[in-house]
Amino acid sequence: MNYSPLIQQLIDAFKRLPGVGGKSAQRMVLHFLERDREGGRRLAAALSAAMDGVGQCRACRTLSETELCGICAHPGRDQALLCVVETPADVFAVEQTAVYRGRYFVLMGHLSPIDGIGPAALGIDALVAQVREGQVHEVILATNPTVEGEATAWYIAEQLNRPEFNARRLKVSRIAHGVPMGGELEYIDGGTLMHSLSGRQPLGIFNQTDKNTP
Amino acid sequence: MNYSPLIQQLIDAFKRLPGVGGKSAQRMVLHFLERDREGGRRLAAALSAAMDGVGQCRACRTLSETELCGICAHPGRDQALLCVVETPADVFAVEQTAVYRGRYFVLMGHLSPIDGIGPAALGIDALVAQVREGQVHEVILATNPTVEGEATAWYIAEQLNRPEFNARRLKVSRIAHGVPMGGELEYIDGGTLMHSLSGRQPLGIFNQTDKNTP
Repeated sequence: MNYSPLIQQLIDAFKRLPGVGGKSAQRMVLHFLERDREGGRRLAAALSAAMDGVGQCRACRTLSETELCGICAHPGRDQALLCVVETPADVFAVEQTAVYRGRYFVLMGHLSPIDGIGPAALGIDALVAQVREGQVHEVILATNPTVEGEATAWYIAEQLNRPEFNARRLKVSRIAHGVPMGGELEYIDGGTLMHSLSGRQPLGIFNQTDKNTP
Repeated sequence: MNYSPLIQQLIDAFKRLPGVGGKSAQRMVLHFLERDREGGRRLAAALSAAMDGVGQCRACRTLSETELCGICAHPGRDQALLCVVETPADVFAVEQTAVYRGRYFVLMGHLSPIDGIGPAALGIDALVAQVREGQVHEVILATNPTVEGEATAWYIAEQLNRPEFNARRLKVSRIAHGVPMGGELEYIDGGTLMHSLSGRQPLGIFNQTDKNTP
């Protein structure tokens, strides 16, 4: 004997979520039914509203219910910097650092020929067109340091390597790979350590020996 | 800069779920928005339907959208056995064993004076009334072996200790506590081991020495 149809249907719907198995789905459903019906109704309403109302920003392609997302519409954002990321979650992660004040371009994925995801699906033409408009001085490629992310970054770099862009000295950069803060060299994989060595930075203190350092 | 209002609202709604923090909620929301809008709509519909449609079974108090739940309405169930559990998830767990063919009574919680949950909230009067109807020969107390579950079991046992029930030889039993299958004595807590010793069972083979065992 199983749960009643409505409950079973709801458990099955929750199981579609990433990282949610049968037990967790059951716990979620019973939580709402036994203790928080109001929360369940609110989730249902928020889900309906978001599924139908959220589209993509016309400029940066991130998820947004307005034609231009909050960042693209913000007048204080530096139009000269364009940070290319894979997903809206990456935008959120970079925003959390609170140091980047430029704009974004969200690919909504990475190149993956095996899944049929090519440059067109990632809107790379739109990216090039935005750079061509002329306000962008630097494109920061912040795709993930995975095989696909690296390939995507290299592909975009190739597309931006054009006489017209070189003529106006467009900078194309890649985020640094290396040892994460708080990490221990002993436990870092070889690839990361290699990147960390080849990407080494001169220490400020030795560049400024002529200055009177305390 | 945060997510757009509809997305943030949806993340907050998911965060109400047990065991779901900010990161998981974000992942769930982006999963639906980026890859499975149909699944999101289906979850919203299933949630609305369940929140409004699911009530409690008139007989056993479990969650059900029909007046009598599937188990109470099943003609093949043994009316002589009544298993008292705390939650609908416990009914599901016992059903999974596929050995129990009796009926259930779901308390929807346990005695917890500190939270204001007394016998009335658990429907213990209804339980006693069901036993009084006369079809029940044994009440199996299957509340959790926690402090509250034990207290609830003892309270119910007291309520069933009445001349009228004793006269018809009503049996009241408690599920066995002991070492779980596959467990190792070395790692079992003292309380469980104590229960396991005091609840020891004679081995069938020694009871049947007159039979010709192979």
